[in-house]
Amino acid sequence: MRLSQYYLPTQRETPADAQIASHRLMLRAGMIYQSTSGIYTWLPLGLRVLRKIELIVREEMDKAGGIELLMPTIQSAEVWQRSGRYDSYGKEMLRFKDRHDREMLYGPTNEELITEVFAQHIKSYRDLPKNLYHTQWKFRDEIRPRFGVMRGREFLMKDAYSFDIDYESAKKSYWNMFETYLKIFKRLGLTAIPVRADSGAIGGDLSHEFQILAPAGESTIYYDKAFDLVDFDNEESITQVQHLYAAADEKHDAASCPVSTENLRQAKGIEVGHIFYFGTKYSEPFNAKITTPDGKQVFAEMGSYGIGVSRLVGAIIEACFDGEGIKWPTSVAPFQVGLICAKTHDPKAVGFADAVYAKLLEVGVEVLYDDRDDRPGAKFANMDLIGLPWQVIVGSNAVEKGVIEIKQRVNGSRQELDLTSFINQLVV
Amino acid sequence: MRLSQYYLPTQRETPADAQIASHRLMLRAGMIYQSTSGIYTWLPLGLRVLRKIELIVREEMDKAGGIELLMPTIQSAEVWQRSGRYDSYGKEMLRFKDRHDREMLYGPTNEELITEVFAQHIKSYRDLPKNLYHTQWKFRDEIRPRFGVMRGREFLMKDAYSFDIDYESAKKSYWNMFETYLKIFKRLGLTAIPVRADSGAIGGDLSHEFQILAPAGESTIYYDKAFDLVDFDNEESITQVQHLYAAADEKHDAASCPVSTENLRQAKGIEVGHIFYFGTKYSEPFNAKITTPDGKQVFAEMGSYGIGVSRLVGAIIEACFDGEGIKWPTSVAPFQVGLICAKTHDPKAVGFADAVYAKLLEVGVEVLYDDRDDRPGAKFANMDLIGLPWQVIVGSNAVEKGVIEIKQRVNGSRQELDLTSFINQLVV
Repeated sequence: MRLSQYYLPTQRETPADAQIASHRLMLRAGMIYQSTSGIYTWLPLGLRVLRKIELIVREEMDKAGGIELLMPTIQSAEVWQRSGRYDSYGKEMLRFKDRHDREMLYGPTNEELITEVFAQHIKSYRDLPKNLYHTQWKFRDEIRPRFGVMRGREFLMKDAYSFDIDYESAKKSYWNMFETYLKIFKRLGLTAIPVRADSGAIGGDLSHEFQILAPAGESTIYYDKAFDLVDFDNEESITQVQHLYAAADEKHDAASCPVSTENLRQAKGIEVGHIFYFGTKYSEPFNAKITTPDGKQVFAEMGSYGIGVSRLVGAIIEACFDGEGIKWPTSVAPFQVGLICAKTHDPKAVGFADAVYAKLLEVGVEVLYDDRDDRPGAKFANMDLIGLPWQVIVGSNAVEKGVIEIKQRVNGSRQELDLTSFINQLVV
Repeated sequence: MRLSQYYLPTQRETPADAQIASHRLMLRAGMIYQSTSGIYTWLPLGLRVLRKIELIVREEMDKAGGIELLMPTIQSAEVWQRSGRYDSYGKEMLRFKDRHDREMLYGPTNEELITEVFAQHIKSYRDLPKNLYHTQWKFRDEIRPRFGVMRGREFLMKDAYSFDIDYESAKKSYWNMFETYLKIFKRLGLTAIPVRADSGAIGGDLSHEFQILAPAGESTIYYDKAFDLVDFDNEESITQVQHLYAAADEKHDAASCPVSTENLRQAKGIEVGHIFYFGTKYSEPFNAKITTPDGKQVFAEMGSYGIGVSRLVGAIIEACFDGEGIKWPTSVAPFQVGLICAKTHDPKAVGFADAVYAKLLEVGVEVLYDDRDDRPGAKFANMDLIGLPWQVIVGSNAVEKGVIEIKQRVNGSRQELDLTSFINQLVV
């Protein structure tokens, strides 16, 4: 993409009302525009990151046996009355009436809707287990929206729901998602600590929150330092994680903690995922009954599994930035390469940069080409701000020696290379 | 995907309350589930079609120079008060108040929001033209939702907005989208007739509706039979379409029609797209001013371009079905191949079918494998109902002679082939 034809409204000034780094950086990098309190338009650069996260989550959900569908954003109050949550949910639920005066709401979560769908279609143990998921916009009418997309009102969430014939099978489904979540966060370039959690409004006893380590985190967590050594590509190591100690501030008790002081770490965490087992809490009111192999009828055992997709955009930045801007992990970077022509008044340099751009596109590299007539210093600062993993600079050495300068954003390292060597390095 | 592990709740019975074929077939084929009046959950098979249409639209929009972003579903009433449409829009707009008693609404369209975003960032002729688009859920509170996803309340729409420095340039943007729409509908396997239209609530003078020919269409259209001969892969032919006669019932006047009776066709149409030029209607209230090359300030000239993505799922079915079920065009089919093992009690046949399944996956063919223990007749009827382009049947000849039976859904033709020959036919 040529920057001259793109839509990337970066800002040099720090927005006054943004309190945390990710919010400031998303505004400055032209990723989002606040349409109204807690509600954002995702500008092109921000949308690319959002979609990449969504895709990674989808790929891992599919690998784990999840089946994707899509529930609507607007729900009838009736299903929530049936579960008993319509009255208990509180003011975070956005409620309204349609033109026929029927009570409706914008879904803050989807346990009711999915259980109703499931109960309509699935009746036999032969069709279980099932893990149904979707990625859909939700609305929670926060009293004080803040921190940009980290605590917005309209947000994108992947929520999955498992259905099983009995507790043993439900536990397997739960730990399958536990493992899947660790793989997802690994692919996103993050360290996520699964912290045992209360089940909150949803109920049940198997429950973990996944916390990303970042200084701006809202909660303090304590965890076994063995987490830092886990090889997330190794199934056995992932299984071990189930047994490692991790607790949030309010649960941690130094006196009874099973991990010795020297093996215990303390850090700030941002919650980006939450998994629950809640048994028959919803299958009972929705009469989601399953026939067992011996002809009995039982209520389906359920769990739910959420990941805050739009929140993750902010959380990743909180874990990956410096004084100059964002440092995207490769897997979610909006483009892999930022190409800068530092000599826009030299036709040979422009020709060279154009050729580099064409070649990178040809080999399938996502490249953002700053072809504008602007000062090199401003272009460099802009590229550092938006944080693409690689910067390719076409300067005087390009024309004279045929080499380009490569800067790696994550560590600032620089090297001069010919284009073919760089492409080989990139594609490997 | 193995059907035994999928979520495909097909029905043999015709749903009583569905009035048109696409609605009946989508319910019977397990594509949608009605959560409440005019609001649907997209079940896995339906979602696959929806996503394929969305992707084709996106690819063609990107090729045409469109830049994708994403506006939220919930909007503040303020922006609509600014354009003057908050009062005029009527009861189809879903309005409500948030917890702080601020007036909000679920966006039925996005002219206001996009113009506000644009006005914030774009100030110079150097940054024009721009075509910004998104694909987002909309809500229109229809008084009597019907026809399934064809006239639902929550629906998915691609809406694009063009911004230009003057009328001449805006016209170019308009005809660029006109051409893009013809290409999109062609790729979807449809014949779309662009009919000159009133600009309705939005205003302006360049306006076309794109009508799909289908017996269940709501409007009658008259058009030059030359449309049927247009080669949509040829740019020149597409340009000619601009000048061909087409008019809706209420505009058509036999006496003044420039096309002779023998060259005029009459058909029913379903509206699936609408494009408008509306000048400065929104750029004025939102003060979207552009500096011209000679330093003057002018209001941006705008157009908007909508495609009903979820409506298209129904419209395509209305154009492509028979007494047995749906006949998906290849480009939007949820899977390309339906594999049936007709001898589930013969281990050799099952082994053969398993091997065919593995091979098709290996070469990247999307295949739905009916591996269930069910009567062959029921499996055949089910495959005809869901309408995948190709059916591959593994029966006694598979084990004995190593050949599979191939049925093409669109015309019912059958042939016996070895797998390699079929794959070559499919991949070419």
